Parts: sequence; structure tokens; C-alpha cells
Amino acid sequence: VPKRSDEHLEARRQQILDGARRAFARYGYEGATVVRLEQETGLSRGAIFNYFPSKWEIFFALAQRDAEQAAQLWVEQGWEAVVRWVASVQSEWLGVYFELNRRLRTDAEARERWMRERAPETQARIAELVAEAQARGELRSDLTVEQLGRFLGVVLDGIVSQTAFGERLDPEPIVTLVRDAIAPK
Amino acid sequence: VPKRSDEHLEARRQQILDGARRAFARYGYEGATVVRLEQETGLSRGAIFNYFPSKWEIFFALAQRDAEQAAQLWVEQGWEAVVRWVASVQSEWLGVYFELNRRLRTDAEARERWMRERAPETQARIAELVAEAQARGELRSDLTVEQLGRFLGVVLDGIVSQTAFGERLDPEPIVTLVRDAIAPK
Repeated sequence: VPKRSDEHLEARRQQILDGARRAFARYGYEGATVVRLEQETGLSRGAIFNYFPSKWEIFFALAQRDAEQAAQLWVEQGWEAVVRWVASVQSEWLGVYFELNRRLRTDAEARERWMRERAPETQARIAELVAEAQARGELRSDLTVEQLGRFLGVVLDGIVSQTAFGERLDPEPIVTLVRDAIAPK
Repeated sequence: VPKRSDEHLEARRQQILDGARRAFARYGYEGATVVRLEQETGLSRGAIFNYFPSKWEIFFALAQRDAEQAAQLWVEQGWEAVVRWVASVQSEWLGVYFELNRRLRTDAEARERWMRERAPETQARIAELVAEAQARGELRSDLTVEQLGRFLGVVLDGIVSQTAFGERLDPEPIVTLVRDAIAPK
């Protein structure tokens, strides 16, 4: 058997993640059976579980990619871009996050790992950016960076909840309201 | 058998709802088995399902009571009281709402019933109150009543998400930020 190149391995990994995302979005976490994962990825269970030890690991990798993408977007284009992105994500996929939330609530080990591995550098960079914006007088200074960040987290989670419910949400009024909330007073 | 008084019936109904709430909070919706419902309510399955046709009906009644209580609080004491109340509710119970959300997403009939029966008069009264506050110049007028209400819904759902995750959330910075967001500009 010829040694597979790193490029090949990464392409195969991506193929699994893309197919699994479709399966989770369509059938939910529990409903995404091995047979359905095979159908959506176009790969055998042997191939799939050669790359990921379990279904949970596949889902965890997808959620991590989302978290990394959101954090990257924040760093590059600001929190408004994250609000717009979250409001635009397919509701079926967002629905799967209720499963993640449930798992993280009830499984301490999964929770610790999520906290540890969820793009810690990018998260720290966001906190830095908020602190810098506050120091430049672009954000209100009567609340802490942590309180402002927490509020944005609440708004983003709220958009996820409402969008996952299936309704489209216009992000623009929300961007306007949040901007006025965090503006210098 | 003597005819049971309405008062007795209502007390028994309440006993079931209180016990079931504890069972759902402790074990989750799926994990709240009939045996556990019996333990927490102190009643037999015969008695329980004499009052409610199914576990889903018990949960639906509890969620409706929460929605009614929140709406009533809003009418009587304003949205700030609802923010503080949601932040204070036991996280274990809020976690059960992810099950409700999942069910409402995937079951069109349940969703329609929820929309129809979720305290329509009180919901309408809230919309009225927001419109009146806007007319009196107490709220910004560059956004519609629907957009302002939607924003508050996003914030409340976001608090539920974060609190259900198990962390306590200080509602006061959020109240301050939302107040400034919706204030006249």
C-alpha cells in the first residue's frame, strides 16, 4: 500500500466532515446513524472511523471549526460580521447545537475539553481587541470587557436559538441595537 | 366514589406538575421515566395519567405556565423583571427547554399548538405596551415594535442558553445594555 500523502489525508478528513455536517443537519445528532453517515460521506464505516474514533469526535470537530471560524471572523471583520454570519447559517445545522449544549451540560469531561480546545488563542485575541477598543474610547467604559463580551455572547446565543427554531432573522436591527448598547455613553 | 371537588382536582394537578418539574430538571425529558415521575410526584402512574394523557402533555403544561408567568411579569413589572427572572431560574430546569426547542423544530403540530396556546392575550398585551411606550417617546422610534420585541426575545433566549449551560449570569449589566439599546436616540 503506498503511503498516503498529508494532502490526501486532509482531503479525506474534509470529505467526512462535509458529509457528516449534512447528515447531522438532516437527521439530528442521534438520527445520524452510521448508515446515513456512510451515505452522506460516500465512504464506508471502516474508512470513516479510521479518521475519527467516534461519531461524537466528528461532531466535536465540526463544532470546533464553527467556533474557530466565528472567532476568526470577529478578529478580521468585527462582531457585526459574526452576528450576520450566525443569522445566515442553515437552521437545520444550528439545531444540532442544542445537542452539543445538552452534552456539554451533562458531561463534565466533554465540557472541559470544549473549553480547553475551543480556539483559546483566538478567544484571547478577541478579549484583547475588545479591551483595546475600550481603551481607544470606542466602547463604553462603565462596564468591564468581560461584561461587554458576555452580552455579545448572550445575543449570539439568542440568535442561534431563534434561528434554529426555523425562522429567518434579520440581523440588521440587532446590529444597530447592540452597537448603541455598547457605544460610549 | 364521592365526586372530587374542583379544588381537589386542581391541587392534584399542581402536585403532578411540581413533581414532574423536579423529575425533568433532574433527569432531562427523556430520562424522566414513568417510575421517576411516580417517585417525584408521590402518585401512581394511573393517577398521573388520569390527569394528563402523556408525558409530553405534562411538559407542555409546565412550559406554558412558564411562558404565562414571564408574560405576566412583563405586563406587571416590565421587561427588566423578565430578564432578572430568567437569569435566576434553576439551570437544570432551563436545560429541559432545549428538548422543547428540539421538539418544536421537528414536530409541526406541536409547534402550531405552542404558538396558538402560548398565552396569546398576554403576548398581545405586551406588544401593546411596547407600542404605547414607543408612542410616549420612552423607546427609540427608528425601529418597529416588532424589531424591538424581537431583540428582547433574542436576549432572553441567549440568557436561557447561557444559564442552561450551568453558569450563573449577572443580569444587571445586561439590563443596563438593553436599556441603552432601546432608549430614544
